[in-house]
Amino acid sequence: MYKHDAVVRPRYSETDQMGVIYHGNYYMWFEVGRSDYFRSLGYAYKRLEQEGIILPVVESSCRYIKPAMYDEEVLIRTQVELQKGIRIGFKYEVLRKEDEELLAEGRTLHAFVGRDLKPIRFKALSEEFRAVIERVKPD
Amino acid sequence: MYKHDAVVRPRYSETDQMGVIYHGNYYMWFEVGRSDYFRSLGYAYKRLEQEGIILPVVESSCRYIKPAMYDEEVLIRTQVELQKGIRIGFKYEVLRKEDEELLAEGRTLHAFVGRDLKPIRFKALSEEFRAVIERVKPD
Amino acid sequence: MYKHDAVVRPRYSETDQMGVIYHGNYYMWFEVGRSDYFRSLGYAYKRLEQEGIILPVVESSCRYIKPAMYDEEVLIRTQVELQKGIRIGFKYEVLRKEDEELLAEGRTLHAFVGRDLKPIRFKALSEEFRAVIERVKPD
Amino acid sequence: MYKHDAVVRPRYSETDQMGVIYHGNYYMWFEVGRSDYFRSLGYAYKRLEQEGIILPVVESSCRYIKPAMYDEEVLIRTQVELQKGIRIGFKYEVLRKEDEELLAEGRTLHAFVGRDLKPIRFKALSEEFRAVIERVKPD
Repeated sequence: MYKHDAVVRPRYSETDQMGVIYHGNYYMWFEVGRSDYFRSLGYAYKRLEQEGIILPVVESSCRYIKPAMYDEEVLIRTQVELQKGIRIGFKYEVLRKEDEELLAEGRTLHAFVGRDLKPIRFKALSEEFRAVIERVKPD
Repeated sequence: MYKHDAVVRPRYSETDQMGVIYHGNYYMWFEVGRSDYFRSLGYAYKRLEQEGIILPVVESSCRYIKPAMYDEEVLIRTQVELQKGIRIGFKYEVLRKEDEELLAEGRTLHAFVGRDLKPIRFKALSEEFRAVIERVKPD
Repeated sequence: MYKHDAVVRPRYSETDQMGVIYHGNYYMWFEVGRSDYFRSLGYAYKRLEQEGIILPVVESSCRYIKPAMYDEEVLIRTQVELQKGIRIGFKYEVLRKEDEELLAEGRTLHAFVGRDLKPIRFKALSEEFRAVIERVKPD
Repeated sequence: MYKHDAVVRPRYSETDQMGVIYHGNYYMWFEVGRSDYFRSLGYAYKRLEQEGIILPVVESSCRYIKPAMYDEEVLIRTQVELQKGIRIGFKYEVLRKEDEELLAEGRTLHAFVGRDLKPIRFKALSEEFRAVIERVKPD
């Protein structure tokens, strides 16, 4: 299973008054992981958007295990967990970079849609993009 | 079942280049709903924190149905869905204020902990707070 | 001079590990103040955008006097400070709602541009909008 | 004059419905630049905080020249512009990484304070930290 690690350094603006990273910000990190994941496959999400395809999130979830802290780098380990029709699902592990301790794990489920937010059939995507997805999706 | 509606007006800063509210921001709205929910019960979350109790999020999830748009007010309809030991779970519905159409629904699960992020027994919470929770928790 | 107060309740997500509202978030509040200001004049910013006019920020600044705190409501007192050609400048005061103590003050300078981000002559704006601006701009 | 470049890749969550990076988010980038700047000098801001010193922002400003775009890396070129008593001022240039075109420039002014947000005399800072500042401050 192809996985890709994005490195994120938690920002001061992402902390809250508990002294840890605010839980909602993990979703922004998942998006960083996803964006980096596509780039690592040679097909930046930006390019997909330029081709008129967007990938809105249909479901998202996160389980928090240990808090992430300001300035302590984390890895966002991203993989495609499912792809079926116009649905594509990602899984993310947030690991403390120093020792790869698991801090959180999450998921996002997306639909391929056009700029009008209407569904697009998977076959309508470019051949090159479909080949990328075929390569990484689980059996 | 006691529910409370918080009104949120989506901010320009919360939009993204899809032209809708960025999905990650719903979690900030859930927190607004939760905060308003506690206030409506006469026991502001702020007071809980002043008493040394914090409520970090252990799990969170959201299902997105229709996009929320800049400046179109939404209701965050919040309820306590479960409370068992040190765990308390909230459910949120995001409704377009104008017609109460359901845009999204989400959940957060929390643990009662002290400032050191260590678990606190429910019985260690103030009597008044426990009475509030007993009043709103499902049977 | 016409001024308008928007009420903002500081969110937990807006705090940082200093235990106060993160300084960068005041700019999101200025935008809330500006948006509410236009609405109070009967010409929502949303409508302006629908007419193809956007108001990107050219300069912004803020002076922080006392920290804003989680859950303690603030007023964003907004006024138009200048309008000359395609430039329009706003001034904001952030006041603690309870006692109107001044916590911060800021400014944003904007240009009227079209969707292509190219400047638009003030005279090209709708008559109704120009009347609104004429009414609030300083002499 | 010592300057340091931090690399930031603009996030999807940082865009707005104008299709560019939301102006308020530049202040979060300045903070990334400042944090990286201290690290480059061998004295992480985190360490300063652990020693009981914090650096709240007293003033901030930004001038926006060209929009930053999703996924197009920028450099945050940071320098200390002044240090006088308990005040320290930073200047930031936001440059498109590809061609070093200037997109924005900003400033933040800070005060050295203790955890109680009360001012701390510069001489009360650790000798090592003062040596770092003496090295980078302008004449």
